[in-house]
Amino acid sequence: MSPNKPPPPLIQEIFPVEVCRKAAELGFGGLYVREDVGGSGLSRLDSSVIFEALATGCVSTTAYISIHNMCAWMIDEFGSQELRSKYLPHICSMQLLASYCLTEPDYGSDAANLQTSAKRDGDHYVINGSKAFISGAGDTDVYIIMTRTGAKDDGAKGVTCFLVDKDTPGLNFGAKEKKVGWNSQPTRMVILEDCRIPATNMVGEEGQGFTIAMKGLNGGRINIASCSLGAAWAAIDKTTDYLKERKQFGQKLSQFQHLRFTLADMAAGLLSSRLMVRHAARSLDSAHSHAPQLCAMAKLVATETCYDITNKALQLHGGYGYLKDYPVQQYMRDARVHTILEGTSEIMKRIIASSLLN
Amino acid sequence: MSPNKPPPPLIQEIFPVEVCRKAAELGFGGLYVREDVGGSGLSRLDSSVIFEALATGCVSTTAYISIHNMCAWMIDEFGSQELRSKYLPHICSMQLLASYCLTEPDYGSDAANLQTSAKRDGDHYVINGSKAFISGAGDTDVYIIMTRTGAKDDGAKGVTCFLVDKDTPGLNFGAKEKKVGWNSQPTRMVILEDCRIPATNMVGEEGQGFTIAMKGLNGGRINIASCSLGAAWAAIDKTTDYLKERKQFGQKLSQFQHLRFTLADMAAGLLSSRLMVRHAARSLDSAHSHAPQLCAMAKLVATETCYDITNKALQLHGGYGYLKDYPVQQYMRDARVHTILEGTSEIMKRIIASSLLN
Amino acid sequence: MSPNKPPPPLIQEIFPVEVCRKAAELGFGGLYVREDVGGSGLSRLDSSVIFEALATGCVSTTAYISIHNMCAWMIDEFGSQELRSKYLPHICSMQLLASYCLTEPDYGSDAANLQTSAKRDGDHYVINGSKAFISGAGDTDVYIIMTRTGAKDDGAKGVTCFLVDKDTPGLNFGAKEKKVGWNSQPTRMVILEDCRIPATNMVGEEGQGFTIAMKGLNGGRINIASCSLGAAWAAIDKTTDYLKERKQFGQKLSQFQHLRFTLADMAAGLLSSRLMVRHAARSLDSAHSHAPQLCAMAKLVATETCYDITNKALQLHGGYGYLKDYPVQQYMRDARVHTILEGTSEIMKRIIASSLLN
Amino acid sequence: MSPNKPPPPLIQEIFPVEVCRKAAELGFGGLYVREDVGGSGLSRLDSSVIFEALATGCVSTTAYISIHNMCAWMIDEFGSQELRSKYLPHICSMQLLASYCLTEPDYGSDAANLQTSAKRDGDHYVINGSKAFISGAGDTDVYIIMTRTGAKDDGAKGVTCFLVDKDTPGLNFGAKEKKVGWNSQPTRMVILEDCRIPATNMVGEEGQGFTIAMKGLNGGRINIASCSLGAAWAAIDKTTDYLKERKQFGQKLSQFQHLRFTLADMAAGLLSSRLMVRHAARSLDSAHSHAPQLCAMAKLVATETCYDITNKALQLHGGYGYLKDYPVQQYMRDARVHTILEGTSEIMKRIIASSLLN
Repeated sequence: MSPNKPPPPLIQEIFPVEVCRKAAELGFGGLYVREDVGGSGLSRLDSSVIFEALATGCVSTTAYISIHNMCAWMIDEFGSQELRSKYLPHICSMQLLASYCLTEPDYGSDAANLQTSAKRDGDHYVINGSKAFISGAGDTDVYIIMTRTGAKDDGAKGVTCFLVDKDTPGLNFGAKEKKVGWNSQPTRMVILEDCRIPATNMVGEEGQGFTIAMKGLNGGRINIASCSLGAAWAAIDKTTDYLKERKQFGQKLSQFQHLRFTLADMAAGLLSSRLMVRHAARSLDSAHSHAPQLCAMAKLVATETCYDITNKALQLHGGYGYLKDYPVQQYMRDARVHTILEGTSEIMKRIIASSLLN
Repeated sequence: MSPNKPPPPLIQEIFPVEVCRKAAELGFGGLYVREDVGGSGLSRLDSSVIFEALATGCVSTTAYISIHNMCAWMIDEFGSQELRSKYLPHICSMQLLASYCLTEPDYGSDAANLQTSAKRDGDHYVINGSKAFISGAGDTDVYIIMTRTGAKDDGAKGVTCFLVDKDTPGLNFGAKEKKVGWNSQPTRMVILEDCRIPATNMVGEEGQGFTIAMKGLNGGRINIASCSLGAAWAAIDKTTDYLKERKQFGQKLSQFQHLRFTLADMAAGLLSSRLMVRHAARSLDSAHSHAPQLCAMAKLVATETCYDITNKALQLHGGYGYLKDYPVQQYMRDARVHTILEGTSEIMKRIIASSLLN
Repeated sequence: MSPNKPPPPLIQEIFPVEVCRKAAELGFGGLYVREDVGGSGLSRLDSSVIFEALATGCVSTTAYISIHNMCAWMIDEFGSQELRSKYLPHICSMQLLASYCLTEPDYGSDAANLQTSAKRDGDHYVINGSKAFISGAGDTDVYIIMTRTGAKDDGAKGVTCFLVDKDTPGLNFGAKEKKVGWNSQPTRMVILEDCRIPATNMVGEEGQGFTIAMKGLNGGRINIASCSLGAAWAAIDKTTDYLKERKQFGQKLSQFQHLRFTLADMAAGLLSSRLMVRHAARSLDSAHSHAPQLCAMAKLVATETCYDITNKALQLHGGYGYLKDYPVQQYMRDARVHTILEGTSEIMKRIIASSLLN
Repeated sequence: MSPNKPPPPLIQEIFPVEVCRKAAELGFGGLYVREDVGGSGLSRLDSSVIFEALATGCVSTTAYISIHNMCAWMIDEFGSQELRSKYLPHICSMQLLASYCLTEPDYGSDAANLQTSAKRDGDHYVINGSKAFISGAGDTDVYIIMTRTGAKDDGAKGVTCFLVDKDTPGLNFGAKEKKVGWNSQPTRMVILEDCRIPATNMVGEEGQGFTIAMKGLNGGRINIASCSLGAAWAAIDKTTDYLKERKQFGQKLSQFQHLRFTLADMAAGLLSSRLMVRHAARSLDSAHSHAPQLCAMAKLVATETCYDITNKALQLHGGYGYLKDYPVQQYMRDARVHTILEGTSEIMKRIIASSLLN
């Protein structure tokens, strides 16, 4: 009776760790990590293609895997040889899962002013503070945490990056957040109370944290944007099928001009988003000096356009689009957060405008 | 630590029957039903104001109450004196809750071709068929059902309206649908297998059903549009508070020009939506010949614009907007379906275009 | 051969003074001026309806008439009895045409800081400065000029309004501007060099000028927005005719669903714009405390939406829409400036945001 | 006094033939024509970059040059060796200017049904009919004309392409059209009355005309879209300068967040448009089977987005943007027609939808 056979329900909120590890067997746990520690040594461009394809299946899980990859890359790029050797083989296989901890409850967009403190104490640092909206937190094993080793008002230059193991005493987690989407990955607050970690867990040098965070985000933005591409692609595919099957007023929906034109707009929007993401990925691969603004443009265009595509796809499904039996609403709900995290669309415009005007 | 004190969680999916009955004590169960049977005898314009205000609290519950009111009006306007006297006092007090059954799985937008059949059998009719997306179904008491008493291909003129009691043998319900929003009201399929009902349960005359359905929808569209107004109003209010409280980069968000301008756009959008809805409500109150297209325009503009407002409100809340602890996402998820039900935005454009070109 | 009969060409850039005087015979030269001096004593709401209707014929001429009316109202509302008696009968009959001089080359949106100076000298004032973008300048007879009688940095409180006759020595005009539209009215810079005028030509009191200017603009915004309504209305009318006449692919354009839906959107946009303008006009008529923000919202929504409507109308005319033989492009070019003058859309958002957040 | 030094006026409507010939000296008269007949032998991708750059200077002149190039390519690709040798050296040097004649007054979007007839008469063909909106007509030397050699209702398969010299008896021109923009190139109707031309002037084979026309348009769409890129690029550049110079409220415009964000959106829109155009150009260069829909997508996205950019640029210039002394309005007026010619945006959506659904 229903117009197309519904897929199995998508509402169980399971964090599919075993699925992630299978993805890692294909090399997806350290896509752009060097090969000596188990990485796949691929480019950002390759990775963008892979994340897009994975996200057609599950946006939320792919987005988590992309964050895990960003963490892996930070250790590979900035970590000591010791840290690399100790952690990356297990991270690349996803036996250890990683989380990225930058945002604080009061410092979202304004990351340069984060307040989580790390105080030197002999060969150790003692970390205190809170991190909000942390993907995987509570279920993951390794936390890449941005802290302040400088003075409170030191801004970007006082930020230092550490790796903190899950079993570190004083590392605690908030309740699992209830979210509009991204439900296959748990989100929790990370609370650090006198967390004592060896100084060797520093990633990069003291005061280099903000640079690491921002470089990480350039890639992270391409990754999230790639997940938006996957969402839009899948939403278009499912809508195309639906229009070809569903009849109203004695005609296939695919014969109604307005619906056809809407689909055409969606497809053009996806292609332009995709080209933006690929272009930005290439700029990162070639370490182009404009890469930060190109990544910002790609994230802005792709996450906004692709969300709009998923929203139109829902509309074209009529009442069925609103039901959780049909996957199209899932793509919309998952893609919704992409214009917010890893820098909101507003922050992307800030970055772009500064590059044009300053 | 979080920027504004979160309200109690909104995710329990409770159908608040007792709350509805309290609303009915205030006269909200039969707002534009005549007073001799317990109605409030108010205008559509009054009702629009009331639904908007109620929806600032809960869109989904208000939307159900508005559907209940539409059913009550159909009985009041088209039903026999007997039906009016028997049912309306209990419906206006919401001791009996009503559901409206028009849409079928294969006939959503194309209601004139619905296929649920009602065959005369002496003093009774025997009804067979299925109705989809029925608000309240399974938990409500009285079903206003559009059936086909004419031949299969008779179109609009073969449609007849009946009232069916919940305890009628052969009346069954599908599983509760899992939806993106509108979760305080259950939605189920209604399945009628040899449902035998007295001919006196006919609402209006044989063959008058489509007229009743369309007249009902004119008002229903204003009601749903009014619920969108409430969602947008509340979303703007909560966003205004948030912008005044939340700081980033050392400034209140309310000091950032782009965010201010976005809020201004949202407020202008709400006012223009509200004026459209009030204008259409007045046209129904005065039985203006253009009322159908004015109701269609009001629904089109208000439901699209107000959904967009709630979506922007979510964005302005940043990551907090995506969390179910904050109500703004609830307004967005609830308002999402308003561009689909009671006639999609596409159907509204069909109606408007026909009035301009035919 | 051409699909609909083209109107006479619209590209002669004639300032139709005689047509204006005929309009004044109908009472349109002082619509909301009191009747004792020849005004029509109508409301802002009445005037909005009239300007909209006139603008369906010629947006540019109507817009000039609306500015003339704003000047007339300023004299009526704030001028001395002597000024009223001397000037308004001739202004209401449009024997004398008026121009409004607020904007300066360097102070457009920021009118509170205008720098044209008026220095007291006995019973006279001596005015020096320049005013830009003045409608009618060079061809009109009476100039309502905002000057600074206070100190350079006195802001709004140092502004004073004067009436300056065209034949005042030292009053000169720049070259006629070449503009995208609004070509039936000349636009010139107004240059004042030691213009000596009697103190009795002051409109209102010293230091009251900014208040007068802003109150004038509230009404001016409704008037311009009304002209946008007329442009959109005419554009929709002509497009409706065109769609019904023009064939492609063997069908009337009016049978193509996407074109029908676009027309429906345009019609809904016009109605919502119109309701905003009427609502704001009523608020001025009742001196509602929210009138300034309601006028700002009305101008924002109506001028943006109606421009978009004229732009879509051009598109729906295909290649013919781009030709000056067809009037639709004229409506688009004329309406283009309405989002800029009497306060840009950006300034409207400033006003609205301040009313919400401050 | 004015905020940035205005360029020389742009309103003289001169067809700059000598400038075109200088461009041809640089190889721009036959960019993708083979070198044996004087062409530059470049790719579509190269040509897109060149047209974009030229259009930053003058959109209208560049657009004409691009049409000339399309004609040259048709002769190069489909013409006989004799035609190639006789005409292309002079066309590539722009000693002979070419016009493309497809559209008819009643057959714009529906080119397959064009009605200009060509009847065989011995070694000649006799052509009768009218072509509308022909760029350069009356001032150019060589007309590439699509005719019907088959029966009236033969559709696409009865179309044949001819080259007609300007001095052919019976070839006449309508009055010069008055247009919103594109004023440096004359547009006229082409009227053919018993035009007798040698059969050797056929370009390609009998019945191949529609294929030639459509293949030509694939490239033509990229060319026009490239001109839109140039318009948007120049508009952004001029706006950036203006924002950095102009002050209001005591601040540079470039310090206002909303204006900064608007500029960021414009820049992102330009980049995504550019990537679409380049991608489509590459697909033509590699004769990719999806080239037609990729060219349609590129034209749709680039011409719509870039027009919107020029429109925003005008707005950001305030009142100055509306004056013809400032070039920004010129880019807007010129870019306006790009969503209409060489296939409207609506036709682009038809093409895209068909490729997705059929």
